[in-house]
Amino acid sequence: MGSTFGTLFRITTWGESHGPALGVVIDGCPAGLELSESVIQRDLDRRRVGQSKVTSPRKETDRVTILSGVFEGRTTGAPISLITYNADADSSKYDAIRDLFRPGHADYTYWTKYGIRDHRGGGRSSARETWGRVAAGAIARAILATAGVDVYAFVRQLSTIEMETFDRAEIDQNLVRCPDPVAAQRMVDAIMAAKEDKDSIGGIVEIHADNVPPGLGEPTMDKLDGLIGHAMLSIPAVKGVEIGMGFDAVTLRGKQHNDGFYMDNGRVRTISNNAGGMLGGISDGEQIVARIAVKPTSSVSQEQRTVDLDGNERTVLVEGRHDPSICPRAVPVAEAMMALVLADLYLLNRAARI
Amino acid sequence: MGSTFGTLFRITTWGESHGPALGVVIDGCPAGLELSESVIQRDLDRRRVGQSKVTSPRKETDRVTILSGVFEGRTTGAPISLITYNADADSSKYDAIRDLFRPGHADYTYWTKYGIRDHRGGGRSSARETWGRVAAGAIARAILATAGVDVYAFVRQLSTIEMETFDRAEIDQNLVRCPDPVAAQRMVDAIMAAKEDKDSIGGIVEIHADNVPPGLGEPTMDKLDGLIGHAMLSIPAVKGVEIGMGFDAVTLRGKQHNDGFYMDNGRVRTISNNAGGMLGGISDGEQIVARIAVKPTSSVSQEQRTVDLDGNERTVLVEGRHDPSICPRAVPVAEAMMALVLADLYLLNRAARI
Amino acid sequence: MGSTFGTLFRITTWGESHGPALGVVIDGCPAGLELSESVIQRDLDRRRVGQSKVTSPRKETDRVTILSGVFEGRTTGAPISLITYNADADSSKYDAIRDLFRPGHADYTYWTKYGIRDHRGGGRSSARETWGRVAAGAIARAILATAGVDVYAFVRQLSTIEMETFDRAEIDQNLVRCPDPVAAQRMVDAIMAAKEDKDSIGGIVEIHADNVPPGLGEPTMDKLDGLIGHAMLSIPAVKGVEIGMGFDAVTLRGKQHNDGFYMDNGRVRTISNNAGGMLGGISDGEQIVARIAVKPTSSVSQEQRTVDLDGNERTVLVEGRHDPSICPRAVPVAEAMMALVLADLYLLNRAARI
Amino acid sequence: MGSTFGTLFRITTWGESHGPALGVVIDGCPAGLELSESVIQRDLDRRRVGQSKVTSPRKETDRVTILSGVFEGRTTGAPISLITYNADADSSKYDAIRDLFRPGHADYTYWTKYGIRDHRGGGRSSARETWGRVAAGAIARAILATAGVDVYAFVRQLSTIEMETFDRAEIDQNLVRCPDPVAAQRMVDAIMAAKEDKDSIGGIVEIHADNVPPGLGEPTMDKLDGLIGHAMLSIPAVKGVEIGMGFDAVTLRGKQHNDGFYMDNGRVRTISNNAGGMLGGISDGEQIVARIAVKPTSSVSQEQRTVDLDGNERTVLVEGRHDPSICPRAVPVAEAMMALVLADLYLLNRAARI
Repeated sequence: MGSTFGTLFRITTWGESHGPALGVVIDGCPAGLELSESVIQRDLDRRRVGQSKVTSPRKETDRVTILSGVFEGRTTGAPISLITYNADADSSKYDAIRDLFRPGHADYTYWTKYGIRDHRGGGRSSARETWGRVAAGAIARAILATAGVDVYAFVRQLSTIEMETFDRAEIDQNLVRCPDPVAAQRMVDAIMAAKEDKDSIGGIVEIHADNVPPGLGEPTMDKLDGLIGHAMLSIPAVKGVEIGMGFDAVTLRGKQHNDGFYMDNGRVRTISNNAGGMLGGISDGEQIVARIAVKPTSSVSQEQRTVDLDGNERTVLVEGRHDPSICPRAVPVAEAMMALVLADLYLLNRAARI
Repeated sequence: MGSTFGTLFRITTWGESHGPALGVVIDGCPAGLELSESVIQRDLDRRRVGQSKVTSPRKETDRVTILSGVFEGRTTGAPISLITYNADADSSKYDAIRDLFRPGHADYTYWTKYGIRDHRGGGRSSARETWGRVAAGAIARAILATAGVDVYAFVRQLSTIEMETFDRAEIDQNLVRCPDPVAAQRMVDAIMAAKEDKDSIGGIVEIHADNVPPGLGEPTMDKLDGLIGHAMLSIPAVKGVEIGMGFDAVTLRGKQHNDGFYMDNGRVRTISNNAGGMLGGISDGEQIVARIAVKPTSSVSQEQRTVDLDGNERTVLVEGRHDPSICPRAVPVAEAMMALVLADLYLLNRAARI
Repeated sequence: MGSTFGTLFRITTWGESHGPALGVVIDGCPAGLELSESVIQRDLDRRRVGQSKVTSPRKETDRVTILSGVFEGRTTGAPISLITYNADADSSKYDAIRDLFRPGHADYTYWTKYGIRDHRGGGRSSARETWGRVAAGAIARAILATAGVDVYAFVRQLSTIEMETFDRAEIDQNLVRCPDPVAAQRMVDAIMAAKEDKDSIGGIVEIHADNVPPGLGEPTMDKLDGLIGHAMLSIPAVKGVEIGMGFDAVTLRGKQHNDGFYMDNGRVRTISNNAGGMLGGISDGEQIVARIAVKPTSSVSQEQRTVDLDGNERTVLVEGRHDPSICPRAVPVAEAMMALVLADLYLLNRAARI
Repeated sequence: MGSTFGTLFRITTWGESHGPALGVVIDGCPAGLELSESVIQRDLDRRRVGQSKVTSPRKETDRVTILSGVFEGRTTGAPISLITYNADADSSKYDAIRDLFRPGHADYTYWTKYGIRDHRGGGRSSARETWGRVAAGAIARAILATAGVDVYAFVRQLSTIEMETFDRAEIDQNLVRCPDPVAAQRMVDAIMAAKEDKDSIGGIVEIHADNVPPGLGEPTMDKLDGLIGHAMLSIPAVKGVEIGMGFDAVTLRGKQHNDGFYMDNGRVRTISNNAGGMLGGISDGEQIVARIAVKPTSSVSQEQRTVDLDGNERTVLVEGRHDPSICPRAVPVAEAMMALVLADLYLLNRAARI
């Protein structure tokens, strides 16, 4: 259970960190959409390991193959199966932790829930699972692009370093995907320092969606906000999500926080966008704004207290290859999840009126 | 679409603020559970309007009637239909805003999405819809109680006032449901001051679940975290949700944030609980901790800029009866949503192993 | 679990035979549809008991009340809650069978599954549950009517009596809803004879849908055929369903059975309609044709062998008020289920292409 | 949409007849189940083409590879991805029908629905899609086996030839999977005669499930009967389904049709099994009995009337490699679908009581 996301545009991911392959099946993609492996690969390349000195050195090309659902360059309405083969799964490092639960990881909870655990690289709980999310997200983005919707994310804060300027063009120009080049350099330094200390750092990723048509969201339970919350908190390492002003809204008064309406060339707009682009769970035509809190990577190469399968107290030193901060690679994953939410709601909205 | 929450324990709410009645249908409640109207009413009474000077003066008893699914005091496995009749719906105040979009409300988005809007009291987008959530949540709590699980929430912060002490017994002893009686008094004062100013304030509600068995949560998409995010962000006025340390985790290093394991009388425990009771989307047996950001009430009796259905710029003064802060009444709603998530996962977990 | 049908146009029924009320919640009805209680009542009146000498004498007006989702005569996109109150529930007749399992009924299986049973009038397993299906079906028909789709059913065979002529106008002119007035009279006689013998008879109901646009059906699992099978076999007393030629197709050869294509004023048509209006699980624009086998009513006022809750062998004589044949009242139920399937697929089809 | 079946034990098939591969993802398989490729292959070998002179000569080994969800011989609770690669897809024969709609096939309806069609071998509408059903069904059977449930099917009738004796051991001893060896020989002859005539024949497949525990089925919409109807009518070429006596029940009287209860060594049993093992949509502990009508194969190598994409009337001669009767290979598919229904309901039933 639980590997599926979406109502009409529905994805199911599968695969483990050290299994032969990983993949995703997308059911409900409308027919007639132009689609090629290169479009999907572009997003995958931004997610993959080994892309720079601030990411894990594991070497995976993450090459996507389309196995079904596309004919002569267009989707057919049939389920789209995407696959990638693991190339550089080195399980030897994990033998030492076969009987141990790594702090911060899902080792203990998987073992308790299922009574069995694929310990190699975290098995199913590995962030490698997000390969399928990003691959499917690329298709969601292609759907959204037909409606002019543009989804992008960036690192807003890393540890205590906050961005101070915003230039979208900068985002993919630096290793941490921060739109402020000065802050970006400090962030890179912070990551390298943490790596040096065999430790890790967290941060905040912000996600925008521009040109979202008003009307997306299915109240009351499948509000746009609710689905974003679901999507973002299903990403490994994410511990919080906020919309618009989010937690900062709690110290404002209602009059301050409310976004008044005005007319802009015949279109209803809001003067401010404290709400982050949605009211009552439905998009209002303003920019969608969400932020997620990403915890510091749980894998740190220092001794930590733990217990083993037999209930003995032990210590564990996590070897393997890890990202000293997940944030740079969380950017494309967060974009993908936002795109999945919006594409699904965009299709659902076609049934909103008779 | 969108009025249903849950996979096995599945609720569907219905009803509008000024319609004849509101209700909820719960499908998938296990048979054999003891259930009476009084158990449900107890939670509903904590949610209802008119309970004190800090809530809306609208008078509704919110009396629940069980229409199906219970026989001789026990659930039968059939769907449980719960209903309450609106008594004090005064629509006259809303005639003035029939053609106007109230800032911060869903008027504009519902109208845009559906092309029709029940303007009376906010119609379907009214927080009165949460009656059904709390009623269903009471049943979820009864299920969880059979496993010893205890869900409760409280106001942690109101505007800039933060609680400093925690005494659970205090929560229902004051009007704002704050476990710190001193802070509680300051919070009441703050609400009354905002009311005086025809304005409103927001706050932070914290939700705990004690004695949750390890193993609840369905990775990778229906993680416990993800479902909490979905549930909480589907509550009106909630703009953020965080788990465990949440946004504060981003400035820690991994070693600091990780919760080491130790043995406590034969049971695996964690030394700290920065993770808030879940790892990899599955409960780990520690206390579940979540917090939500509640925005200041959108209804404020001051002039605000808006537009009307015909695209004219106008001002609007929202009359009607409102809560100057939603937080005190958000407490039972947040408890209900947490209980709904956990009860559903508790039942789903029965199929986790062969 | 299990009280919900549909993906986008989704209904959830609730209520027991002798509870205070019965109802249905419809989520996903598009906004802007004209809807009134009288439109729904028209279908309900064809389903209700006590309408003639061939049906149960229980007296229920089955009056529908719309509790939500409709504003000023049009649907709003919010869930529509429909309710009716039981008026003539006489539970006294059922005291005698409180501890007995009636053959052919669900008494034993409900008791085994749930460990508790509302024995009064069959509780949840009563055919009274179909009130909600017919009420929701009326809304589905209203949706379909906007596309010109026309759903109707009739009794094709009762016991061994088969209709020989077809005049649609005759269907509602006789007590058994048979389009052949001569056969209809014989069918009425057969029912009265069975009633005289304290026994019951079964029959075959045929369902048509005219003017269905091509393209409805979601392969491979939610084929139009599959959903019709699901819908029809969820109706109490139905033991078989067939599409087009159905079981008679098995003795034909492929060349005979295939429906060749031709052009009819620019529209693709089939020369014959052995397939019953669908190919590969998708409607082809021809008339949808399905038939269901309705078993003879299980309630017969004769002694039958049974056992009691304590495992003693006993006999049971089922009193109460029953239909000597369910077929006439199964007609509106079968129409409703067909309409529910088609309306849902009609809405789903809006997402078939980019 | 529509490629998923099941609620807790949920399968999603993907792939086209002439694409690079076919597969299925199974989500919700309980952890701890012993599983190997050879167990799955055993069922697949009974479905594959080229197994005898009565099946299509296309050569496919249909070899299954497990890509995820199994670790050291046991399921882990993670989604199980199964794949097979197409080896003998000869698309050249299909060039001639690229612009034509084959009668009895889904060519026209897919084209109308999606506006695009993978014409090669029927694309997604090909019966090759059932590979994934049978593969997933093998896992469902393994789950059911842990509860002693045994699912099997056989050809009961082929064209006008009906079986007269039943010996289960005979089923897999002859080419048509008929439990009556004498009838089986006549059936083989009938197939060869049809093949000689470049035509095809249909038949009836019967499915049994033995030792099904009472209690499976989720009334009212997800009755066991309803799900069997859904499952069976989603199989290509199936045009009817009946339970127990099915259509023959309509000419009986209620007293005759009802299955009285008696005690058998402390267990409640029924004297007869006209109901086919279910009452009120829930299994009653007796043998589950269902039958499906399989139409004669639509592919016949004779000229048939059709039209082309441009609306011209044409004739078409379907070349390619086909089964002159689908029945023998429909047997393992029907078994798989029955197993999928029962395994899902078996897991769902764990949540029936508190």
